[in-house]
Amino acid sequence: MPHLLILSRHANEYQQLILSADLPDLAIFAAQDPAETDKYADDCELVFGEPSLVCQVIGAMPRLCWVQSTWAGVEPLLAACRDRGIVLTNVRGVYGPLVSEYVFGYLLAIERCILPRWQAQQARLWDDSSPGTLRGKLLGLLGVGSIGAHLAHTASSFGMHVRGYTRQSEDCPEIGRYFHGGEWVDFAGGLDYLVCTLPGTAHTRELVDAEKLRALPTHAWLVNIGRGSTVDEQALVSALQGGQLAGAVLDVFQEEPLSAGHPLWRTPNTFITSHTAARNYPPDIAALFIENYRRYLKGEAMIGTVSCEQGY
Amino acid sequence: MPHLLILSRHANEYQQLILSADLPDLAIFAAQDPAETDKYADDCELVFGEPSLVCQVIGAMPRLCWVQSTWAGVEPLLAACRDRGIVLTNVRGVYGPLVSEYVFGYLLAIERCILPRWQAQQARLWDDSSPGTLRGKLLGLLGVGSIGAHLAHTASSFGMHVRGYTRQSEDCPEIGRYFHGGEWVDFAGGLDYLVCTLPGTAHTRELVDAEKLRALPTHAWLVNIGRGSTVDEQALVSALQGGQLAGAVLDVFQEEPLSAGHPLWRTPNTFITSHTAARNYPPDIAALFIENYRRYLKGEAMIGTVSCEQGY
Repeated sequence: MPHLLILSRHANEYQQLILSADLPDLAIFAAQDPAETDKYADDCELVFGEPSLVCQVIGAMPRLCWVQSTWAGVEPLLAACRDRGIVLTNVRGVYGPLVSEYVFGYLLAIERCILPRWQAQQARLWDDSSPGTLRGKLLGLLGVGSIGAHLAHTASSFGMHVRGYTRQSEDCPEIGRYFHGGEWVDFAGGLDYLVCTLPGTAHTRELVDAEKLRALPTHAWLVNIGRGSTVDEQALVSALQGGQLAGAVLDVFQEEPLSAGHPLWRTPNTFITSHTAARNYPPDIAALFIENYRRYLKGEAMIGTVSCEQGY
Repeated sequence: MPHLLILSRHANEYQQLILSADLPDLAIFAAQDPAETDKYADDCELVFGEPSLVCQVIGAMPRLCWVQSTWAGVEPLLAACRDRGIVLTNVRGVYGPLVSEYVFGYLLAIERCILPRWQAQQARLWDDSSPGTLRGKLLGLLGVGSIGAHLAHTASSFGMHVRGYTRQSEDCPEIGRYFHGGEWVDFAGGLDYLVCTLPGTAHTRELVDAEKLRALPTHAWLVNIGRGSTVDEQALVSALQGGQLAGAVLDVFQEEPLSAGHPLWRTPNTFITSHTAARNYPPDIAALFIENYRRYLKGEAMIGTVSCEQGY
């Protein structure tokens, strides 16, 4: 009988959800703290949990053959899984709707001047100047995985045009035109919004640098909901301070939490959120584990299998 | 040859747009001010313009047989058109996308705590508590015309459930359940958001009164993008002050502009905008006139024909 270790802040909720699926042949141990796993880590061949916790016990799990991450980002587990041939699956497809709410919440707040109108309201000012509209504007997606595809769909429903910049993939029908490699300047020219959805890998490290930012129009906004490591933050601060870019919406940072002295807190036209664009929604993530466990038993390919070489 | 008077703040832009359509047999006069229309009002059988301007000249246009309004709301023209048998068409179908941007901009701002997070940012506070989500929440539409149908579609794309309360119509497939007449309490119970899209007519006057507000859950928000006359503003202020309702997003008011002393400016959890949810977008509205003019020449039914008895 396979032994599963659930190691998560939401361990109890995940245990309930998995138990209620009545899976065949599964012994479940649940812990919120890596320190509580001593007794059964040895026996478990499966782990379901947060990468930041799982990486603390993975060395003490000799039988481990599959890790289901509760996150999309699995950087802390890549080296160990690659070296030991452990199958690593991440959460894919469940964040699209949440990230769409975040991104379009901010894009609409920007276009509809929600913050300036609220400030006008405090002064009892009837400001009937026309706000902007998303319709007809051009969205560029840097990275088009499942989150990018959901963003493209939502953008289309608001009448936006959408471009994608990817390594090579071109499989989302709602992307009007794809760009790759040396085509950045063509991709970035004319964008109203650039949304970065990239994972944090060696290849994406500070991919959005001063030169790439310079290729954007001065009226463009940058939105980063991928990983903070993909943006050169000093270059971004300079671009925003110099009016070379209209603004930024940032949910992820090179170091989190953002330190109190970090210049981004007070950079003009910048919205800072605290890595909350896509929070774990346990029922979705448990459902993904349950589906993958069924595939695992049958030896089928699992959803969200990560290439430990590519890092996503 | 038909003579058309364009009477609009955007008269020049409309004239360009209509001229570029190269319509057969049409003499066009354009004015931004009713006072400039003396010379040709007499000859014109068609008017295209803002109801607030057209109502000032309609008495001086003996040959008038069709008015194409540039607005959805046509209250100032109803009596004259009814009495003289003038065909009145309004703008329908073009506001849906703009109103969806407004409504979902505010709904997402509320769920994603955009204002509180921006305030936390001013204090350099890393607040990683989970925001809310639209997904799974229940939207109630009071009135389901073309704007309501667009809202229902957008709500569905964000994973919301949608109910409609109408006089009798039940023709929008994205509405999960319809309610009518005496079913208000069933309709309102459990709603997270009530969006009022009703036109201003004798039947809708203060339809949303103290009793109807009481039927909403205390966590519900009211959004009004229809006409201010449909809501009892005193009852609304009381409900918001008493915590009987979570908040309100109001774009329309009994009197506009809202006077500086009006209590709504400072009612808690209330967002006030200045009748800017759906601004005229001249290319869309000119396209509607052009299509209707073609139908007019052929004697076909025109889009957006208003029943002067019902008022919409």
